[in-house]
Amino acid sequence: MIAENLKSADFPGVFESLADLGSHLESLVAGHSKLFVLTDENTLSCCWPKMAAACPLLNEAHMLEIDPGDDNKCLEIAGQLWSCLLETKADRNALIINLGGGVITDLGGFVASAYKRGIAYINIPTTLMAQTDAAIGGKTGINHDRIKNVVGTFHPPKTTLICPVFLETLEYEELLSGLAEMLKHGLIADKTLWNDLVNINPKELINRADLIGRSIAVKTYITTEDPHEKGIRKLLNAGHTIGHAIESQAVAKGKPLSHGRAVAMGMAFESTLALAKGLLTQDENSEIQTVLNSFFGPPDLSELTTEDLMQFVLNDKKNQHDKFLFALPTGIGTAAFDVEIKEDEIATCLLSLK
Amino acid sequence: MIAENLKSADFPGVFESLADLGSHLESLVAGHSKLFVLTDENTLSCCWPKMAAACPLLNEAHMLEIDPGDDNKCLEIAGQLWSCLLETKADRNALIINLGGGVITDLGGFVASAYKRGIAYINIPTTLMAQTDAAIGGKTGINHDRIKNVVGTFHPPKTTLICPVFLETLEYEELLSGLAEMLKHGLIADKTLWNDLVNINPKELINRADLIGRSIAVKTYITTEDPHEKGIRKLLNAGHTIGHAIESQAVAKGKPLSHGRAVAMGMAFESTLALAKGLLTQDENSEIQTVLNSFFGPPDLSELTTEDLMQFVLNDKKNQHDKFLFALPTGIGTAAFDVEIKEDEIATCLLSLK
Repeated sequence: MIAENLKSADFPGVFESLADLGSHLESLVAGHSKLFVLTDENTLSCCWPKMAAACPLLNEAHMLEIDPGDDNKCLEIAGQLWSCLLETKADRNALIINLGGGVITDLGGFVASAYKRGIAYINIPTTLMAQTDAAIGGKTGINHDRIKNVVGTFHPPKTTLICPVFLETLEYEELLSGLAEMLKHGLIADKTLWNDLVNINPKELINRADLIGRSIAVKTYITTEDPHEKGIRKLLNAGHTIGHAIESQAVAKGKPLSHGRAVAMGMAFESTLALAKGLLTQDENSEIQTVLNSFFGPPDLSELTTEDLMQFVLNDKKNQHDKFLFALPTGIGTAAFDVEIKEDEIATCLLSLK
Repeated sequence: MIAENLKSADFPGVFESLADLGSHLESLVAGHSKLFVLTDENTLSCCWPKMAAACPLLNEAHMLEIDPGDDNKCLEIAGQLWSCLLETKADRNALIINLGGGVITDLGGFVASAYKRGIAYINIPTTLMAQTDAAIGGKTGINHDRIKNVVGTFHPPKTTLICPVFLETLEYEELLSGLAEMLKHGLIADKTLWNDLVNINPKELINRADLIGRSIAVKTYITTEDPHEKGIRKLLNAGHTIGHAIESQAVAKGKPLSHGRAVAMGMAFESTLALAKGLLTQDENSEIQTVLNSFFGPPDLSELTTEDLMQFVLNDKKNQHDKFLFALPTGIGTAAFDVEIKEDEIATCLLSLK
């Protein structure tokens, strides 16, 4: 248990009201030569009017708008955004404000990281998934050849500002998706957070800035300790090695899955792997499976083959020398990284879960 | 004078023979999961056979080949290279060896910097321009919308290895182009180097590893002091603010110019600016103009308008808040950065040089 009892105060960027967030932002944008706000169609209509009202300085900003959806987190759109910055004669002191979900914060961060070799950006994530995961920790990225986030950089935002008000317009399914990452933070590093989440109604999270802040505090603690993922940061990949493979495979089959659902399935799968490796007790694994089932239903792996899984696992960024290295839970609230798993162990696990 | 009397020993990566370079490289590639060698058609036929003979381990490498020319230093080709890395299942411990001129080292460095958020690369520059400038200092980049190097990162190579043997196949014009950067290093930081270069026959440089090493030592000293160009590194932009504008404009008019010739014209122009600002004496400016003329002939600015120049200067990466900031010589062997120049000063200077 590496980060238990973190308080939301440990992450200073959580604001109960948009007015507070706006006045804080006002002080941060002053001094930049030009402002850009990156949104998609959805956040432009739902979130931008609220943001612009809360922070009048933003009305001078140049708007950058993309179509919604993960398909747009790609090289072609990054190229178009660089062209927009060039047309507007943005210099190295320009600032990009990413207002949206993970697609916006990942893409906008990447564009900022490589424009004139790096300009500043601020993340204002508007989904629970982006607030608790994507917008925290300084990773930027785009998809390429159907592999998620495989092109990107480490380029931390100037800051990330969180306000639960944005969550009010989210669908239940989107809250559920973000909850998966919060559960992961509890599972790998904070048993108390896990315990506080296991019985929650996802809709309640809109009013639980405290729980959101504590989840972010876990990620912030870990990514500050190890920004470039040489060690402890690999823990955050729990659920993601298999989760990303399931997600990529779902996209390839034309039946896309929310990232959170894929991660929840990945956590269920990887906990079973951890049990098989003797890292988890039967009781601990049962609790994890029960909690995940209660939110996400039993994982449907009926159409998944080991070959499908391996194809995507092989491209996972954290593998080296063709070894498959996993971050696996070693209890509720603790985890280990760089655990080597063989293909036959994955095959056996898949068979047992089908 | 910030770096006078540097010896080539200050830059350990210069090798008199390819055999020495090869055996050094052998120790550096061991331990990497996969090797890639990036070349263009020219370096594949001229340089790769020599390299492969000098370093047998390289025969296991996957070859990445692009068409020659600055047009290929672009997003589309970067995307194709990322696809090749993905197809070959390159992991984070893969190594890219960039064998070629500045196009290869800039592009290969950029591709490495963003593949899986950064993998290692080694530069083996094969032109004098790349050996003394492009491959040194950790800047990577590609062109976008006809603006040179406007998308890129700071991502230093594992090392840069230099061998003058590669220069044997270069045209005279290419040696001259590299000499421009060497002269710049002398002009801004090392009067002795300048004095040793002013009477040289560019063809002699093939046998002057010592001068190449001393030129690199200036750039290495400066970029090590200030890797992210917050201060002293801006000195290296001497000749480049106007030089890049002239180069971009030449491309736009369909009459491309070597980078070195453009930089030489930039140095001539900017020395005249420095004289007008009272930073250089008449004698110092005369010496600079005479030396540049002796190598490059008088700068032909007849087709250049102030509007043309300003259009490109505005997009220069080091400008901020719409101010034009130049690095200008303040003597032979010394220079200042962040010198503000107004549009009318540029116009007056252009008029005086026509």
